[in-house]
Amino acid sequence: MTVLRLALIGFGNVAREFSRLLLSRRTWLRESRELIVDVVAVATRSRGSLISDYELDLRRVLELYESGKRISEYGVEKTDSTALEVIRTSDADVMIELTPLDIESGQPATDHIRAALGRGMSVVTANKGPLAWAYDELASLAQRTGSQFRFEGTVMDGTPIFSLVERTMPGCRVLGVEGSLNSTCNLVLTSMMSGRSMEDALNEARLLGITEADPSLDIDGWDAAAKVTVLANVLMGARANPKLVERRGIRGLSVEELRGAVDSGRRVRLVARAEPRSDGVFMQVGPEVVGTESWLWGVNGTSSALTLKTDMLGSTTIVEENPSLMQTAYAVFADLLVIDEKTREKAP
Amino acid sequence: MTVLRLALIGFGNVAREFSRLLLSRRTWLRESRELIVDVVAVATRSRGSLISDYELDLRRVLELYESGKRISEYGVEKTDSTALEVIRTSDADVMIELTPLDIESGQPATDHIRAALGRGMSVVTANKGPLAWAYDELASLAQRTGSQFRFEGTVMDGTPIFSLVERTMPGCRVLGVEGSLNSTCNLVLTSMMSGRSMEDALNEARLLGITEADPSLDIDGWDAAAKVTVLANVLMGARANPKLVERRGIRGLSVEELRGAVDSGRRVRLVARAEPRSDGVFMQVGPEVVGTESWLWGVNGTSSALTLKTDMLGSTTIVEENPSLMQTAYAVFADLLVIDEKTREKAP
Repeated sequence: MTVLRLALIGFGNVAREFSRLLLSRRTWLRESRELIVDVVAVATRSRGSLISDYELDLRRVLELYESGKRISEYGVEKTDSTALEVIRTSDADVMIELTPLDIESGQPATDHIRAALGRGMSVVTANKGPLAWAYDELASLAQRTGSQFRFEGTVMDGTPIFSLVERTMPGCRVLGVEGSLNSTCNLVLTSMMSGRSMEDALNEARLLGITEADPSLDIDGWDAAAKVTVLANVLMGARANPKLVERRGIRGLSVEELRGAVDSGRRVRLVARAEPRSDGVFMQVGPEVVGTESWLWGVNGTSSALTLKTDMLGSTTIVEENPSLMQTAYAVFADLLVIDEKTREKAP
Repeated sequence: MTVLRLALIGFGNVAREFSRLLLSRRTWLRESRELIVDVVAVATRSRGSLISDYELDLRRVLELYESGKRISEYGVEKTDSTALEVIRTSDADVMIELTPLDIESGQPATDHIRAALGRGMSVVTANKGPLAWAYDELASLAQRTGSQFRFEGTVMDGTPIFSLVERTMPGCRVLGVEGSLNSTCNLVLTSMMSGRSMEDALNEARLLGITEADPSLDIDGWDAAAKVTVLANVLMGARANPKLVERRGIRGLSVEELRGAVDSGRRVRLVARAEPRSDGVFMQVGPEVVGTESWLWGVNGTSSALTLKTDMLGSTTIVEENPSLMQTAYAVFADLLVIDEKTREKAP
């Protein structure tokens, strides 16, 4: 039986869904994977933090948080440390970084991850920022300290992209990527193509809880730009950042333009792509009219799709159909299981 | 540096393409994976066999075969053993089973695999038969003898299906599968929808070299039935065989019927699915009219697509675009690398 101790940094929607998933899979983890996962530290943005020598009762932490209280009321000794203090002093094996995205800098998540990897603590994150801004540095740091760094949830939620390439396509070189990666834009475009205004469509996305806190991150293509940067950095060896993406959002599009495409049997998608050029990896995000011959034609609503072009395996496309919060939580869960698997391999 | 010794059982198109891939990746294998792959035995159907104590010069074996000669002319001591004798007496670590499919029985491939796994030799195969008829027995045998048994190439060539579930979706339960899995039928249907006769369309597929030796295996849905059986056995715990599939092929379809679907904006695909029922896993293969809302609508020509329905990850679809022989060879190559990886983990 192995025990993995976790520090949860950030306790928003994804972290709480992940906590519920952990609770529901306790028995399965123990019986099928011989694994006990104990949360020993939690840091929230504005409701305090907890550092414990022992397993925290995650159910109680969730109850406190969801009834609007500070989690510091839990009753362990060390409360109200900052996230960085939690990372530096807690006894966790794995830090789960789920703070909100700051697209301009990748902070504070990058500092959190740097601190954890620097201590030899493995890291799972669903935050695109650090990967878009500092992938190279963080991956090297992990290698130096022998810690693991996983981030499946940063692109297309739990749908395997990074694990797909790493664990099922050994020896394949990724020559290019192309896809529809932003759920909000895709939903807004899908709604507008059926005649709704952008404002109504955006409200619909907001009600589903899938928009970024600042809607311009979605609408102006920043989220897709960050994702394509992550793909280029991790899969194609680019050392890029989101500002280098040739980026156009969907803000300026009118219902009339979109209906025009539909009337000619086509559809509009926000397409992100990365491809090698002589001077590095070229990255682009922008609305494109696609015909029925394109995989993206069938990607409606909040679905996403990504095509990986490779040397030995040709073109492989993977499609995620209308995901919920569960899928992002699953990405973290799956990464954690891979970390456990790899830790056991290294153990004597 | 690790050395893996291979016995190639079957030396048809896929085995020879795999051999060329091995030759072209020698340096990469040594430098990036610290792996030397030596072929020490080859068995052909009608051109003899070779068993050697040392690495065979694969380039020379290929040259002999492709100039129409018996490979026994190579000049090692043991030639012309049967495939089973090669498996029982050669010194290989991994047996690569690539003999032709016999859909009625899964033989002789099943006997070959049983003999290899029984000796503790790991096995890679792209042959559906043994998986469709004897998966359960062979998987248990591998577990008992501590050998590895991999078969990515049996469904959708090199596109990861089994590795996708095993290595990137830990803990996920597969609740059902649905897809278009037979390249020949899909190409024939695509051609017939543009007005060609079934005979012309079949000839086109034959020229591409993608048909089974006996075209009825494709046209009557047997190949798709075998594939969906493999998926049900491996991913859903069924203990099924291809005869249990509710099966209709495309033989009876007329160009007029197909054009009728096209004229109403729809398309015809040969759809294979497996889903749990109270009395086991229900499996079905048959032509279906699909609309633009279906992923299968966009799967033209020799492309394939499979949707996996899971508990934690929702619906994930993976699409293979117009594969060539290279992709099947890559399936074997990728399986071999996973075997190497797992062997190292187990090593002290």
